[in-house]
Amino acid sequence: MKMFNRVVIIGTGLIGGSLGLALKKQRLAGCVIGLSRHQKNSRLAKKAGAIDHIGESLAVVKDADLVILATPVNTIIDLGEKIAANINKDCIVIDVGSSKERIVSKLGALIPHFLGCHPLAGSEKKGVANLEEDIFKGSICIITPTVKTNRRVLNKIKRLWKELGADIIMLSPKKHDRVLGFTSHLPHALAYALINSIPDRSLGLSSNGLRDTTRISSSDAYLWSEIFLSNRSNLLTALSIFQKKLTALKLALESKNKGQLIKILLLANQKREKLG
Amino acid sequence: MKMFNRVVIIGTGLIGGSLGLALKKQRLAGCVIGLSRHQKNSRLAKKAGAIDHIGESLAVVKDADLVILATPVNTIIDLGEKIAANINKDCIVIDVGSSKERIVSKLGALIPHFLGCHPLAGSEKKGVANLEEDIFKGSICIITPTVKTNRRVLNKIKRLWKELGADIIMLSPKKHDRVLGFTSHLPHALAYALINSIPDRSLGLSSNGLRDTTRISSSDAYLWSEIFLSNRSNLLTALSIFQKKLTALKLALESKNKGQLIKILLLANQKREKLG
Repeated sequence: MKMFNRVVIIGTGLIGGSLGLALKKQRLAGCVIGLSRHQKNSRLAKKAGAIDHIGESLAVVKDADLVILATPVNTIIDLGEKIAANINKDCIVIDVGSSKERIVSKLGALIPHFLGCHPLAGSEKKGVANLEEDIFKGSICIITPTVKTNRRVLNKIKRLWKELGADIIMLSPKKHDRVLGFTSHLPHALAYALINSIPDRSLGLSSNGLRDTTRISSSDAYLWSEIFLSNRSNLLTALSIFQKKLTALKLALESKNKGQLIKILLLANQKREKLG
Repeated sequence: MKMFNRVVIIGTGLIGGSLGLALKKQRLAGCVIGLSRHQKNSRLAKKAGAIDHIGESLAVVKDADLVILATPVNTIIDLGEKIAANINKDCIVIDVGSSKERIVSKLGALIPHFLGCHPLAGSEKKGVANLEEDIFKGSICIITPTVKTNRRVLNKIKRLWKELGADIIMLSPKKHDRVLGFTSHLPHALAYALINSIPDRSLGLSSNGLRDTTRISSSDAYLWSEIFLSNRSNLLTALSIFQKKLTALKLALESKNKGQLIKILLLANQKREKLG
């Protein structure tokens, strides 16, 4: 069922490209136009069937009824500002960035129907080579409406993500950033620091445990530096809390307090059980 | 090809039971006898085809030509001491504990043909319910001989692990514990502390990243408290180095030093590539 006539996706990487692919396969859009900083990416996205046309410039947003900002988190605000004057007044603009407070505050003030979205569907892989139309199936998409959000727009975007197979959770942008600071940005920071702690000569002796705990340390360094900086204060808070928990474990170990150690590990077992 | 006439496995959990299963399926042992603290476990192991007979007491080691100590790490030395006087002089005794220095030093002094082994083949699951005969295929088994180790015994045990599909790495017990402090015990400690940092109300909003980085925080709390304590000083060293790496990342973030942040994350990308 066609939901949009003309969709423009800015940024045809893993998320943007997979969105295009899913929109087209499910015939949710009349036509999908893709733009990328690198012409090569848009060409690959077109070849993969993720977009119908390659946009020549940001001016293509003119007749769009949906624009999706799917570039790295630090460029979203800038792009949103650039397209704000060119879009139709009814055009819905969403982004898929990993932090929301700043983006929603800036672009919500400029674009009448802006809605922040964050599909928890990425991976350590990136780029058009890893497109998957099913990437959103069974995943969670967080939508971050504000008091200004039009209810019809909200419902339409909720339906869009549902059609793509995602479960929707609604959070305020502030809450989103606080939660994701813990559930996504903290594990990434730890994975990077963990692999950096392993002496080179021991890397060949890894167990599955090390492989799993450091998988996301393959995530793109440039992209993730920006994500960390975009949610800096929440990540710093999460890091402080983590350091307290680690210190508690370390103290129990230092003092050979087996009872306390077991207590800490049992709590972890219980919390891990509750992970969604 | 039968390598042993009578194998006694003390501790028929995930590793001990899987060893029995593999020994029997590959007809490497004439007869496999299993003992467990909990009668129920030995009965389940027998039902699963992991052992031929249930041993009534430690006295069954009498005519064994191979004894495998596969109990939690804190009970291995005690069990080794108990069987030392009852075994034949040619009997080979191996353990599969996660730390080696203390075990090898104590039991190497008591048992003429003792050899420390550590198959990196566990998982966060435990117990007889998760037995897998293929668990060692493609895995690494670390063997920790000393100057006292008989060459014929070493070769036989190397052949045993090779028959089970493991690649063998030989390390001194001291080196083993230093390396594993980083590659196994550190990731476990971090996974426990990480999941303990996540606010309960955010547990439902996890991404694949959090799921992967905390998978091993499901590992048995009692078992892992003992493993941590058994390799306490190496783990404390690894934790200190990790804390330095994390502090470097935190400082770059605090000072909004994007260049430094990218440098840290790029190094992590490179190191992760080298993971065996």
